[in-house]
Amino acid sequence: MESVKIVKIGGNVIDNPHFLQEVLRKFVQLKGHKVLVHGGGAVATQLGEQLGIKANMVNGRRVTDAETLKLVTMVYGGLINKKIVASLQTLKCNAIGLTGADGNLIPAYKRKKGETDYGFVGDFEVKDINVSLLAGLFGEGVVPVLAPLTHDQQGNMLNTNADTIAAGIAMALGKKYKVQLVYCFEMPGVMMDIKNPDSVIPEINTQKYAELKEQGVVAAGMIPKLENAFHALNEGVSSVKICHAAELSDPESGTLLCL
Amino acid sequence: MESVKIVKIGGNVIDNPHFLQEVLRKFVQLKGHKVLVHGGGAVATQLGEQLGIKANMVNGRRVTDAETLKLVTMVYGGLINKKIVASLQTLKCNAIGLTGADGNLIPAYKRKKGETDYGFVGDFEVKDINVSLLAGLFGEGVVPVLAPLTHDQQGNMLNTNADTIAAGIAMALGKKYKVQLVYCFEMPGVMMDIKNPDSVIPEINTQKYAELKEQGVVAAGMIPKLENAFHALNEGVSSVKICHAAELSDPESGTLLCL
Repeated sequence: MESVKIVKIGGNVIDNPHFLQEVLRKFVQLKGHKVLVHGGGAVATQLGEQLGIKANMVNGRRVTDAETLKLVTMVYGGLINKKIVASLQTLKCNAIGLTGADGNLIPAYKRKKGETDYGFVGDFEVKDINVSLLAGLFGEGVVPVLAPLTHDQQGNMLNTNADTIAAGIAMALGKKYKVQLVYCFEMPGVMMDIKNPDSVIPEINTQKYAELKEQGVVAAGMIPKLENAFHALNEGVSSVKICHAAELSDPESGTLLCL
Repeated sequence: MESVKIVKIGGNVIDNPHFLQEVLRKFVQLKGHKVLVHGGGAVATQLGEQLGIKANMVNGRRVTDAETLKLVTMVYGGLINKKIVASLQTLKCNAIGLTGADGNLIPAYKRKKGETDYGFVGDFEVKDINVSLLAGLFGEGVVPVLAPLTHDQQGNMLNTNADTIAAGIAMALGKKYKVQLVYCFEMPGVMMDIKNPDSVIPEINTQKYAELKEQGVVAAGMIPKLENAFHALNEGVSSVKICHAAELSDPESGTLLCL
């Protein structure tokens, strides 16, 4: 079974051009097939302010009205995605930028209105992901770079959380490949004490995760990430790691999650 | 020899959503391998104005400073490209949006400063175009949709004229395929009298082109398009057509250019 690494980088990496370059250099060092998934970052919020579009966040997710959808399509699918692709090309990594609409990679549907109407936000089924498109690109030595956007199959782009896309792609590829999912951010991993970088927990299994939640060690912002990760492990992803972006190519870094 | 149709649609098509949908429906009807190349349109200028970035045009080309480069990367590579891709997906056409950076499709270099410094504008050599990427996508039944952007192989995107990209792609594919290049716009073809839609010239060869230029029948805006077209014919493209976008799938429409 061939292996694939799915690396997700968040907004904090993207907002810092020097850090981003360092992280991309580490990403390029990873051997074998790989996929980069990027989040949004402050640039969408800044540009939105310039255009009079206010960011409206509920539970850490941006409410996406029609103007915000245009904004994120431009910023995530255009500005950030192409900057990363052009940067990877200089590092001799043959990257190709994709949204979920491109090659029908992630057909999705607009989230139904619940307590909160999130607007043009897309949810998708893992089974609908176009694995053969990715397999074809791997075969050509091409590295997919995914923006956090899907489409509703009716002509509209949709805003979709990058962590969710990374986990979904990992699960879809897990049927055919040995998949390692790596969530990178600006911290060294899951920490016992958020103020102490030396307190990284090297390994967390489901039982330990329950204990850490119980103890309140796992902070609110980390919970959706860990829920995504354990869901991916349950669905056939081989391993999930949470680590500092600058250490993504170091097998000893960060926190390894397992069942 | 397999055939490929390269269709270029300009800003006037893109600026009108209903017209764009009609044109995409016609594009989908074309049989065989195909590529869509799109231009920019007024939306970049409008958004630029909202952001305090003024359009600075010299000889019909936008001067691209650093802020304008960000703007066109967002609008061409993000907003317009993804809208077209999502629309084609609803028409059961498996489109994939690409810039010249994606898959290193069009490695380019920043234009040297001449009388005018065009800024972040990219020129490219036809021989550098990544034909095997396109051939691989054709093999998968995927339809490339190209934004008018290239990259400088040093981490920067570059703004490149869409007509030039369409002609370059046509010439690069001409070595391996029978290529028809179609320039679509809001007029029915090259006309003897610009005020009379019935005066379309059905065919123009190089000799007739020289006469029409001499007579001043060919207007200033049309000359670069025709120069690109005749250059492509000289470099192995089978045929070039200039027609109304709504008639792109009609073999009898517009003006056919030949040597």
